[in-house]
Amino acid sequence: MTKLSIAEFQQIIRETLPVAAQYSPEIKTLEHGRAVIRLPYRKELLRPGGTIAGPVLMALADLAVYAAVLSAIGHVVLAVTTSLTINFLKKPAPAALTAEARLLKLGKRLAVAEVEIFSEGDPEMVAHATATYSIPPER
Amino acid sequence: MTKLSIAEFQQIIRETLPVAAQYSPEIKTLEHGRAVIRLPYRKELLRPGGTIAGPVLMALADLAVYAAVLSAIGHVVLAVTTSLTINFLKKPAPAALTAEARLLKLGKRLAVAEVEIFSEGDPEMVAHATATYSIPPER
Amino acid sequence: MTKLSIAEFQQIIRETLPVAAQYSPEIKTLEHGRAVIRLPYRKELLRPGGTIAGPVLMALADLAVYAAVLSAIGHVVLAVTTSLTINFLKKPAPAALTAEARLLKLGKRLAVAEVEIFSEGDPEMVAHATATYSIPPER
Amino acid sequence: MTKLSIAEFQQIIRETLPVAAQYSPEIKTLEHGRAVIRLPYRKELLRPGGTIAGPVLMALADLAVYAAVLSAIGHVVLAVTTSLTINFLKKPAPAALTAEARLLKLGKRLAVAEVEIFSEGDPEMVAHATATYSIPPER
Repeated sequence: MTKLSIAEFQQIIRETLPVAAQYSPEIKTLEHGRAVIRLPYRKELLRPGGTIAGPVLMALADLAVYAAVLSAIGHVVLAVTTSLTINFLKKPAPAALTAEARLLKLGKRLAVAEVEIFSEGDPEMVAHATATYSIPPER
Repeated sequence: MTKLSIAEFQQIIRETLPVAAQYSPEIKTLEHGRAVIRLPYRKELLRPGGTIAGPVLMALADLAVYAAVLSAIGHVVLAVTTSLTINFLKKPAPAALTAEARLLKLGKRLAVAEVEIFSEGDPEMVAHATATYSIPPER
Repeated sequence: MTKLSIAEFQQIIRETLPVAAQYSPEIKTLEHGRAVIRLPYRKELLRPGGTIAGPVLMALADLAVYAAVLSAIGHVVLAVTTSLTINFLKKPAPAALTAEARLLKLGKRLAVAEVEIFSEGDPEMVAHATATYSIPPER
Repeated sequence: MTKLSIAEFQQIIRETLPVAAQYSPEIKTLEHGRAVIRLPYRKELLRPGGTIAGPVLMALADLAVYAAVLSAIGHVVLAVTTSLTINFLKKPAPAALTAEARLLKLGKRLAVAEVEIFSEGDPEMVAHATATYSIPPER
């Protein structure tokens, strides 16, 4: 069971994450250690080549991992990314993106997750990321 | 010598990279294979903990590598990131950020760069990234 | 269908990959874009803490990706790793390891794969890796 | 000042790191947060293409970071790698390798380092790595 509801995570985004909030992310699923987030398409996301800019996918991957971590440890907003690796596999079409994050490890101090990102209507993965979050000791 | 002027890169940002343009990046240096970019501080960049959100640093790192790549190969806007790894070393204060990218390798098909990010007024590095760009064959 | 048989890959290891051959890897599965490799335990694999040394897991991950790539493109031994990221999730016990690699992308020039590594008898993943291989143009 | 001498680190390798010891690494420099290690060439390090196998470079990078970490925290052999990213920039010739690691961050729980690897006689970097080590709490 998730330790944070979709409504609670939407509120965290709205009130404390303006960088993510600007993309109007939609939390589709929030389970213990797993999150699915959809990013609606807007033409402001594009870069040369008619594809969505890499930093948008990185922001989406990071947000999905944050959601997956909080779903497992609860409302610990001070959990922070310590590292992230992303591989861009295919140029995403100008369309909505969906990221699915799942925890690979949940330790006391570190959580590690992987993220798969898809472009709506395309079965092939467009990006894959792994990220590590540091969990604050005092909670 | 750089194959792209600062003014030309600023124009690429302004006209084709809205995701980066929103942060009003200032290109301080553009040499062959090396770029320094400053990101002015705004409170919209913050996340819980009073620090700058990770995706802002990722976007800055990616932009700095893009600049370093184009400084070496010229106006090839279709060069795209194929992978990026970032390590967050220290929570950046609410202040401007400066990223310095330098090419580690410039091949025909791939360029690899590393990026060091500093927070203004702090001598300790706040993040370190490496990124690979794919260079389109036809140019 | 795999473009390389298990026997052919075992021969590549035996004749051309002494660094991998020293670990006596057993190829359990080789399908198109997917490979499972088992590494028998020996006490020479240990490091302080009674756990298997990180470089052994890196070598295993790299070999599993090489197998997955060749299973999809055939006997192209000059395919080489261009990058690899590994996250160590849990200290593996002194036991055999199993790595499962699957291709996330197979392009003309680059292949990207992810690898999950398990310690025999433990359902929790001990390491996760992603790697990119460069595929030589002339083949 | 280093908290571990070259002789002490050589002893750690000889007595507790058989995976590294097999490559007969030579510790050239050990300063606080910085280590230089040379790996002599042997033909058993090769892979198809007449170049040194990737896992050898990964093992060397990891060892150099371990040395840099211990030079800063002392004889804490239970420090372990939590993640490593390597970019292969150029196929190393059949020659000795030299890795130079330097700490980018030394925290209470995590240390982050970068590593540059060169092939003897070649001024161009052949590989670049970043790695994170977890430092055990009780010491």
